Amino acid sequence: MTRRRGSESATGPVLGRALQILGAFSASCPEMTLSELSRRSGLPVSTVHRMLGELIAWGALERGDKGCYRVGLRLWEVAALAPRGQGLRERALPFLEDLSQITRENVQLAVREGTEVVFVERIAGSGAVPVLTRVGGRFALTATGVGLVLLAHAPDEVQEQALAGPFERFTPCTVTDPRELRRMLAEARTHGYAVSDRQVTMDALSVAAPVHGRGGGVIAAVSLVVRHGSTSAHALARLVCTSARATSRAMITSQV
Amino acid sequence: MTRRRGSESATGPVLGRALQILGAFSASCPEMTLSELSRRSGLPVSTVHRMLGELIAWGALERGDKGCYRVGLRLWEVAALAPRGQGLRERALPFLEDLSQITRENVQLAVREGTEVVFVERIAGSGAVPVLTRVGGRFALTATGVGLVLLAHAPDEVQEQALAGPFERFTPCTVTDPRELRRMLAEARTHGYAVSDRQVTMDALSVAAPVHGRGGGVIAAVSLVVRHGSTSAHALARLVCTSARATSRAMITSQV
Repeated sequence: MTRRRGSESATGPVLGRALQILGAFSASCPEMTLSELSRRSGLPVSTVHRMLGELIAWGALERGDKGCYRVGLRLWEVAALAPRGQGLRERALPFLEDLSQITRENVQLAVREGTEVVFVERIAGSGAVPVLTRVGGRFALTATGVGLVLLAHAPDEVQEQALAGPFERFTPCTVTDPRELRRMLAEARTHGYAVSDRQVTMDALSVAAPVHGRGGGVIAAVSLVVRHGSTSAHALARLVCTSARATSRAMITSQV
Repeated sequence: MTRRRGSESATGPVLGRALQILGAFSASCPEMTLSELSRRSGLPVSTVHRMLGELIAWGALERGDKGCYRVGLRLWEVAALAPRGQGLRERALPFLEDLSQITRENVQLAVREGTEVVFVERIAGSGAVPVLTRVGGRFALTATGVGLVLLAHAPDEVQEQALAGPFERFTPCTVTDPRELRRMLAEARTHGYAVSDRQVTMDALSVAAPVHGRGGGVIAAVSLVVRHGSTSAHALARLVCTSARATSRAMITSQV
């Protein structure tokens, strides 16, 4: 009995600490020294140091040129097997590239994780309006076009949680009124696309449409982000919806 | 003293087992049941089961529709921070897309990990010759164009290890003679590109060139894979070398 309890309590903290170390890496801190890693993970230097050996030996982390630690290639290889990340991306990429070549604008592919959007792919158009997103980055569901589409098709409890706020205000146009947001979600379901008009940056307009999986549910959203005033949301919607439908068809034969 | 030893031995196996579970996923097994995961990781069902809870709670793994386990989105997000994976890919993607649009052939980007090639990006040309590679997949250094380039610029001990064999023979054209391979590596260094002529499949010709990092060393290789007989290696080499040089310039401002 004692042995079982002992092994349980030994499993918990050790694995949790290793995951804390991995979770300490971020877009702003992709490479860290031992002491930075200790500070960002909230773990003592000695604990981090003890785990680094094994994480590096396996390839979860690796040492960079300046002796800093960074996420390793083997972890990236394993993570490339994530059906909702790389699998979805590879299946959708030909359609995203078509959309990018036809419009020369920003094309984005995203999935929902809890009450946030995670961007799975982003093709920046040459000369297109700058956007704040990056692959593997997160954003609020209610501000972005892809987020509104994903939220419109999310389970009721997710919608309630997201609409309970608080809402970050990125621009004067960011919608933070739950009643107005509910109306936008209903429109997204009725029209088959969602519009984010200067909600993230004052010079960008985004139109997004849902990608359906094999079971018929919405598994992702694709969007075009263009300079505000350059074209109408309606004109973009036809392009995005066509592309999203083509992507949905391709998903039927996939495992996503 | 006993306590220190105890905590060391407790860290070792637990973290190692968690990494064994992650390492059990592969391109042929991206989703597994508990018993499959146990068999592939070589760990008892009870051990795997005990760890799954925490791995899922963190997002390293997630449950699919059919109750199977798969690599999770959060692990994919963290892994997207790997400088040699996603970072390199994002920096190189515009140049790879140019090469893809100009040639309509297969474009590949790869890095070396030990004595193997890991493919970081692959853009399949519409109607291009089928290739065996996939993003996150590995291959022998000596058979592929990108592998020959990476091996040609690898440290001596890596070259010796790779040339010691054994060599997998994919086609009758796969070069397995160490002396002939040494000659090809010397040519790759002299000419600035490497050729793999039907070494992987009998219908494919690949030409690859090195991408240099900030320090001047070779950090990756880019290649074009075309149908054998459709064009000359020399004609391809000019395109690939131009693209690889442009990518190298873009790396100067990056952290890769």
